[in-house]
Amino acid sequence: MAYTNAKKIYGRVGAEAVLTEQSDLRQYLTGFESSFGYVLSDKDGSAFYTDPRYIEGATAALAGTDIAVKIFEGSLEKLLKPYKQVAIPLSKTYYTEWKRLADAGLEIVDSEQAFIEEMSVKQPYELEAIEKACEITDKAFNALLSEIKEGMSENDLAAELEYLMRKYGASGTSFSTISAFGENSSVPHHETGLRKLKFGDIILLDFGCKFGGYCSDCTRTFLFGDDKKHQNFKTAYEHVLTAHMLVKERITDGMTGSEADAIARGYLKENGLDKFFSHSLGHGIGVNIHEFPRLSTRSEDILKNNMVFSDEPGVYFEGDFGIRIEDTVTLKDGRAVSLTNSDKKLIIL
Amino acid sequence: MAYTNAKKIYGRVGAEAVLTEQSDLRQYLTGFESSFGYVLSDKDGSAFYTDPRYIEGATAALAGTDIAVKIFEGSLEKLLKPYKQVAIPLSKTYYTEWKRLADAGLEIVDSEQAFIEEMSVKQPYELEAIEKACEITDKAFNALLSEIKEGMSENDLAAELEYLMRKYGASGTSFSTISAFGENSSVPHHETGLRKLKFGDIILLDFGCKFGGYCSDCTRTFLFGDDKKHQNFKTAYEHVLTAHMLVKERITDGMTGSEADAIARGYLKENGLDKFFSHSLGHGIGVNIHEFPRLSTRSEDILKNNMVFSDEPGVYFEGDFGIRIEDTVTLKDGRAVSLTNSDKKLIIL
Repeated sequence: MAYTNAKKIYGRVGAEAVLTEQSDLRQYLTGFESSFGYVLSDKDGSAFYTDPRYIEGATAALAGTDIAVKIFEGSLEKLLKPYKQVAIPLSKTYYTEWKRLADAGLEIVDSEQAFIEEMSVKQPYELEAIEKACEITDKAFNALLSEIKEGMSENDLAAELEYLMRKYGASGTSFSTISAFGENSSVPHHETGLRKLKFGDIILLDFGCKFGGYCSDCTRTFLFGDDKKHQNFKTAYEHVLTAHMLVKERITDGMTGSEADAIARGYLKENGLDKFFSHSLGHGIGVNIHEFPRLSTRSEDILKNNMVFSDEPGVYFEGDFGIRIEDTVTLKDGRAVSLTNSDKKLIIL
Repeated sequence: MAYTNAKKIYGRVGAEAVLTEQSDLRQYLTGFESSFGYVLSDKDGSAFYTDPRYIEGATAALAGTDIAVKIFEGSLEKLLKPYKQVAIPLSKTYYTEWKRLADAGLEIVDSEQAFIEEMSVKQPYELEAIEKACEITDKAFNALLSEIKEGMSENDLAAELEYLMRKYGASGTSFSTISAFGENSSVPHHETGLRKLKFGDIILLDFGCKFGGYCSDCTRTFLFGDDKKHQNFKTAYEHVLTAHMLVKERITDGMTGSEADAIARGYLKENGLDKFFSHSLGHGIGVNIHEFPRLSTRSEDILKNNMVFSDEPGVYFEGDFGIRIEDTVTLKDGRAVSLTNSDKKLIIL
């Protein structure tokens, strides 16, 4: 379980002390979500220092583990006084924090690689949480379909979907739902607004939830009625779906992120669509909605078994329409396994 | 409007170039929400560099303003090549980003104070957005009351409330809703869960939404039926409410955050409750749910007219119950004006 991660990271970093302030990394180390605190590990064990708002909750959550819960009092300098060397994740540490530690005379080591390597390969309890988040995502999407009615706004639809995810057990969304109707679907990250749904509209929904501290991520593009004006859309849809499925067929452990991206991009290129695929293929998913590995044209990140990431090719025709089809997937025994599984065959409501 | 802020900040910082990467600060400078990009200002004007996902949206949002929208290509080093000096907000810049700029030979200046001073005093368009977010918050809470039923879980109630805020026009929550029933209310930042509501339970709800990119924040504590076992609760409730109201009566511009905090803490002390008031009185609210100024025992932040912050005294009796009463308030002509206005007189459903 989560609380064993503090020891694991400490062992992997190999510094005198490991200090972790970032809320995502703290959650990974303790399994406990909070907006303030430090996890400090040394040869004698780990402690979670936080403020009184979280003491009762953290004490209950970490009872029986080897992580002590303490009130953070005084200063960081005081907390670190016993040490000559401290590890922090440099690319997630603000300059002023780094400077405080450097000014206190501490030798600073980077803990980030240890976090990336440990966090990107998911443990069984982490996969379980992500699978559950994905199940909720699917269930909510399927239930949403019968609620979609002419005249609803993008915002109304996002409200319904987020409500359903909550009702089915999510602790919240993993990011702000993107709900785009008609021509708005051509903006890859459209700001959900008041555009009302009308017959024949394309609907693009990019959504996800959190369960047990872990994220899901899914995108579906479909039609609200067929006004018979969507031949270009339908042709492009089949190509995006094929690109999406080819990634799942061909991706394997040991591949780089750029090799994975090239599967989709290459297929779209053969069909003259690569110039409309204006973003990368995917990103790692865990306690964060975006994390290691990146699946993009220039990524050298190596894909491994039990990593979890998105497979989300898309094409966008400015001012006209866009299509994105995304699943959360994991690699198991070298093969892609989809964790979101709602229908990807073109839905026409 | 927002897009004039880039020029304002540039003028205030007084560096050769001002580079802003942080998503909250970018939103402040451009009025446009995005997960990636840089705003770069120099004597010739400002540009927003982002990736293709946002180009169409940003171009539309910033049409007719003096902020150009460009695709970010190449590297930060390339972007900054024309300059000898660049300003960045040091306490919000990761060490590795700072080091890249330092290694590129740039003189680095801190832009943070300019952001704090400009962003903490709200402009009319910002106050309007926050007022609207607060109105939605009130409307959702009032509508929620008639939906509360025995057997609902904390999570169900949070789902309903978040749904209502969305339906009334919010673009999402400003933070994950805290919904605590009965003894769970004694945990100031309780993790919303599956505890089911029963007759006589205390309900503590801490919630807020976003509208036009700005946050609201509100907490209400009330009873689901009166089982006549709540005399201690009722007495404490009146004291917390009095502390909350005294802050609004006495707070004025020019006061420090610690003087404001002392209004509530002093009153609770007179009534033997200060040791149960285990957090600070409040925090600034804007594009972020927590920002400058802090209202806490040690804060020397000066309160000014048109700042927006929370007034949220609370008392917590471990394992028994907790009470928090919070409004979003602003200072207008030296007096507190409440922006959230749902009933604070003890509600018994």
